[in-house]
Amino acid sequence: MFSPGTNNAITDVAGVRVGQVTLRKGDKVRTGVTAILPHPGNAYRSRVPAALHVGNGFGKFIGTTQINELGELESPILLTCTLCVWKAADAMVEWMLAQPDMQEVRSLNVVVGETNDGRLNDIRARPITTAAVRTALENAKGGPVQEGSVGAGTGTTAFGWKAGIGTSSRKLPESLGGFTVGVLVQANFGGVLQVAGAPVGRELDRYAFQNAVAARENTRGLADDRGDGSIIIVIATDAPLSDRNLQRLASRGMMGLGRTGSSASNGSGDYILAFSTAESVRRQFDAARLQTTELANEQMSAVFQASVDAVEESIYNALFMATTESGNGQTVEAIPLDQVRKILREHGVEIPAP
Amino acid sequence: MFSPGTNNAITDVAGVRVGQVTLRKGDKVRTGVTAILPHPGNAYRSRVPAALHVGNGFGKFIGTTQINELGELESPILLTCTLCVWKAADAMVEWMLAQPDMQEVRSLNVVVGETNDGRLNDIRARPITTAAVRTALENAKGGPVQEGSVGAGTGTTAFGWKAGIGTSSRKLPESLGGFTVGVLVQANFGGVLQVAGAPVGRELDRYAFQNAVAARENTRGLADDRGDGSIIIVIATDAPLSDRNLQRLASRGMMGLGRTGSSASNGSGDYILAFSTAESVRRQFDAARLQTTELANEQMSAVFQASVDAVEESIYNALFMATTESGNGQTVEAIPLDQVRKILREHGVEIPAP
Amino acid sequence: MFSPGTNNAITDVAGVRVGQVTLRKGDKVRTGVTAILPHPGNAYRSRVPAALHVGNGFGKFIGTTQINELGELESPILLTCTLCVWKAADAMVEWMLAQPDMQEVRSLNVVVGETNDGRLNDIRARPITTAAVRTALENAKGGPVQEGSVGAGTGTTAFGWKAGIGTSSRKLPESLGGFTVGVLVQANFGGVLQVAGAPVGRELDRYAFQNAVAARENTRGLADDRGDGSIIIVIATDAPLSDRNLQRLASRGMMGLGRTGSSASNGSGDYILAFSTAESVRRQFDAARLQTTELANEQMSAVFQASVDAVEESIYNALFMATTESGNGQTVEAIPLDQVRKILREHGVEIPAP
Amino acid sequence: MFSPGTNNAITDVAGVRVGQVTLRKGDKVRTGVTAILPHPGNAYRSRVPAALHVGNGFGKFIGTTQINELGELESPILLTCTLCVWKAADAMVEWMLAQPDMQEVRSLNVVVGETNDGRLNDIRARPITTAAVRTALENAKGGPVQEGSVGAGTGTTAFGWKAGIGTSSRKLPESLGGFTVGVLVQANFGGVLQVAGAPVGRELDRYAFQNAVAARENTRGLADDRGDGSIIIVIATDAPLSDRNLQRLASRGMMGLGRTGSSASNGSGDYILAFSTAESVRRQFDAARLQTTELANEQMSAVFQASVDAVEESIYNALFMATTESGNGQTVEAIPLDQVRKILREHGVEIPAP
Repeated sequence: MFSPGTNNAITDVAGVRVGQVTLRKGDKVRTGVTAILPHPGNAYRSRVPAALHVGNGFGKFIGTTQINELGELESPILLTCTLCVWKAADAMVEWMLAQPDMQEVRSLNVVVGETNDGRLNDIRARPITTAAVRTALENAKGGPVQEGSVGAGTGTTAFGWKAGIGTSSRKLPESLGGFTVGVLVQANFGGVLQVAGAPVGRELDRYAFQNAVAARENTRGLADDRGDGSIIIVIATDAPLSDRNLQRLASRGMMGLGRTGSSASNGSGDYILAFSTAESVRRQFDAARLQTTELANEQMSAVFQASVDAVEESIYNALFMATTESGNGQTVEAIPLDQVRKILREHGVEIPAP
Repeated sequence: MFSPGTNNAITDVAGVRVGQVTLRKGDKVRTGVTAILPHPGNAYRSRVPAALHVGNGFGKFIGTTQINELGELESPILLTCTLCVWKAADAMVEWMLAQPDMQEVRSLNVVVGETNDGRLNDIRARPITTAAVRTALENAKGGPVQEGSVGAGTGTTAFGWKAGIGTSSRKLPESLGGFTVGVLVQANFGGVLQVAGAPVGRELDRYAFQNAVAARENTRGLADDRGDGSIIIVIATDAPLSDRNLQRLASRGMMGLGRTGSSASNGSGDYILAFSTAESVRRQFDAARLQTTELANEQMSAVFQASVDAVEESIYNALFMATTESGNGQTVEAIPLDQVRKILREHGVEIPAP
Repeated sequence: MFSPGTNNAITDVAGVRVGQVTLRKGDKVRTGVTAILPHPGNAYRSRVPAALHVGNGFGKFIGTTQINELGELESPILLTCTLCVWKAADAMVEWMLAQPDMQEVRSLNVVVGETNDGRLNDIRARPITTAAVRTALENAKGGPVQEGSVGAGTGTTAFGWKAGIGTSSRKLPESLGGFTVGVLVQANFGGVLQVAGAPVGRELDRYAFQNAVAARENTRGLADDRGDGSIIIVIATDAPLSDRNLQRLASRGMMGLGRTGSSASNGSGDYILAFSTAESVRRQFDAARLQTTELANEQMSAVFQASVDAVEESIYNALFMATTESGNGQTVEAIPLDQVRKILREHGVEIPAP
Repeated sequence: MFSPGTNNAITDVAGVRVGQVTLRKGDKVRTGVTAILPHPGNAYRSRVPAALHVGNGFGKFIGTTQINELGELESPILLTCTLCVWKAADAMVEWMLAQPDMQEVRSLNVVVGETNDGRLNDIRARPITTAAVRTALENAKGGPVQEGSVGAGTGTTAFGWKAGIGTSSRKLPESLGGFTVGVLVQANFGGVLQVAGAPVGRELDRYAFQNAVAARENTRGLADDRGDGSIIIVIATDAPLSDRNLQRLASRGMMGLGRTGSSASNGSGDYILAFSTAESVRRQFDAARLQTTELANEQMSAVFQASVDAVEESIYNALFMATTESGNGQTVEAIPLDQVRKILREHGVEIPAP
């Protein structure tokens, strides 16, 4: 309903930066790190209000309870592979403690999300290094964001095809506040793909859904694919939102996810983290009072709509930009874009050619 | 993905009964009551496990906290108009207390949901009567369920058109357990309608979304329509589910709702109540131990998928079966089915002609 | 730790008013209504931030989900008897819709809590009248609050003795902000009473706890007393708190309750509603932006402490001020204050003689 | 109200084992690890139902969302120091992946709690080693549990004195099921100590509460003590409980905490994890159906009471068994037991001499 921002990326929200490190080693390692920094300053000293919605909590997301208790983020956000979250978290702690103005800090709530790239990646080795985390954090920048098989999306799959990192944004018209909503996803889940309603999964005979169906009913699909997997969705906005309204915003992520053909399988870790970069709701460490100007409840609907749309498109982008990847003795193919275009055309879907 | 049951209705879940009373009086009253009974026995003495998910809590749903605390339903479920919930609840209490085996009962958690039919209905008069509630409860039956402008859907609207009650069901293949999932919705909300992805709202120039857009940007839509409103979704299943897995099931309702073009506006009361009718999880009043056989977490994915699909279709049915209604000095038109069929055809959507 | 305010009552929070109506009729009716108004203006037009914590959700509390979704209260708070909540709610709706500036209102989230006075009161008759509700609302005033067997506490019991309405307040020293925290409770629950740690229940041989213990183990107690029952706790403060910090504040109510000897039995409906009257966080209806000055997280600890203390004392006050009551063929005695004083003395408890 | 089990320890719940490693090095390191194993088998293959309650979420507890989503525990529980949780979690993952029957596992939800021992311990160095974690896990055993300045309690403080690990248990009479409830706490928080109501903190002039009070009002207390800090409470029981009733049980932990004089300050990480060891609710990995026999809601009250009592006593034990500790340039004294005994005597508190 609304138009994308300049780069159609989470970085269209001013100040948000993304850094990615891709780890490919031999046949075994296909993983990486994606870092999202809420603003150019010290995330611990100048805190953005934030909230987390758990769509399906089969995941190892780190830092959840403090975000919701205090309603704020005090670290960058890292995405990586499932069994790597603890190492990645410790690496980010080490990096943060070494920053200026952090010498007295003895408590730190770092935020790390994950999805399971264990099909293409030797996840049991927990191949994330301190150096990779540091590089992702230090190289983070605004502007265009690389999508597909990159960073924390290097080894992920969705709907039975190679997926990865996707991003998108929406800009509200001035009459609705002129705010920008940006989304970045790490897509790695199952279901039967729909693109703006067009039944791409069905047409291409690709069902990533409860292997029992495939195996026993002799229907189509990958016999070894439970369709489990996860998605981490990060929503940034410059709309001045309270943590409560960010909680509500985060919950809308599941509606965008539903549009793409997911029903959040049992094994999903579906987490949505939302934060606001607006100065008028920023919290300075050690302030005794918070003086804030925030959007009233009644003004939220357009922000909700923008986020649903941007989540939906981010997922498509994660799929369309991904490339075939082999690792760990397996190959997961990129979605065949020519066929997708044909199907979309047949279903009257007007989307910018990927 | 899965096929509907015999009646494509919530009553395809064996034992579930629906009773509806439509109230139309003069120009002012356009409302009603829809009752859902979980099984043919005494709902208080023989309790079904149940859970409630609040998608957006701008609503007056009655009975929420006890359902989630005890994980069970101890009354039928009533749907009616917003400012009528308290009268309807008291009427159901009166009716229940007068039933056999209820003479000693001094505590009762009745469940009543609502949406706001205040455009077509004189809602401030709270026109629901004790007699209407009793009739809905006593006339409840299995088999086909009347849809559209009936019962609690008599005065409701969705996506800018007349809506009402809708229902649908899905039957899992035997390999996935052979369970049935049935859904009934009271649809009364905003957004821009998509039908299986086809942009019906956009093509028909009907935007029920934040009047500011319409008014200030001179775009299309109803200048007096905020797109607020609500949906109550009831999910029944004969799959033997714990209250926790019913909670997870209920949360999937928002994914089905998202597919139809809603983003759950600020003013929505979006509630999803799920219950299981399976005997193996039924709770007898006064039992000291519960012996249950329930589906393991790993078997839930197909049930989730079935519910997302059935919620989506129930909403379409609520729209397609509704008829133009006038009341309270206003008229809300039924969606033009011929044009809808044409749009669906153009977008390659194969759905049974409504 | 902190001192009480002028009246040691919830009304020590400036602007808060309490109105109570006691209903005693024949042998059957022993109940009433207690109304709490957050400020002297129109509660719907000028909204206080608010939050609800559910300690144990076996109760019929009305209005829960919207409070937490929007973070605000839009009506006075009523307390009454369990099976009366729906009638009381409808009566408050009728009263509110008839107020000035309310002619266009078609949606209203009223808040009504309850406990079960069914031992002394013919609760199945649902004896609350529209007149009683209206009177409680219209006669509400500041200043001293009547405690014990009055209003919604007319028929309630706690720890095996007659209880009722209790109230208390605490004033923080200026160095901690100088804020006032006021509490009002409707006490009606079980356990074994401790007063500031002194084992009053044990010394007086009064165990209101799971009749099985009494009956089968031949220990002391009331053989017909399950110790179930409930408590509604309302916390008001003039500290400028966000809805999130009010949520945190509300949750502390359970800590104060724990101190008195309750462990929140299965059948408890333990609800804590907290709101802030501070002008700097007040929300005007229809404002597009909220400009607020609120207390930072780091300043909350003293407010938490004050509320725990005031909740604890409110419960003692509810017991100590209650008088023996007969109804419905039963009698529940007031706690014997002389004996209590003696026990407290023996345990070195310095509390003001009740 | 009920009697302790044989060892008055969490290990009175049959099968539960505790392993502790204390790390003291030079002047800097005063910390450790405490591991709790729910049963003697493989925690991943044979899962206990479990639930987590967050009393105040200012903490880095790892593994929260999956516990509540699936209602089960799939790893041992580790307690350690705040900035060490990620290293400890990774070490436990490494250990678990190397166990028999774990070669195919690519997803693992480990549970690690923490409190902040940063006063006595050089927490920024994150001194927990893989070896310490492995040793704690491998040496875990039933029987008596060491309390005080040991394991994860080596460097913790509470109420302004040295605290640490504490444990306790309660056995229900046969008429209430004969179940055992065991508790273990890592105590490290503030407030003004009460022991069974006796005002020990006040009498000993020790206020660990919001330094502002001390500093500005010239009252007593530690001028540099905010009274922040945390407590991790683990509740084990052999009562056959569903995850929902374990959730309810966990929430009662805050009531026991409240009795000791805490009001859960802003900076607290107060987490309560409850699990049931009963075979009749155990979940075998890969089972398609769960056949369970669980306690009905109506039977829960006594289990609630037992847990409140055992939590309260565990905290006293953590204090009374702790010994004066110096580290990081500071000293925290043990509570003076002679004086405590005197105060308790004066207040008529009969507790077993510590």
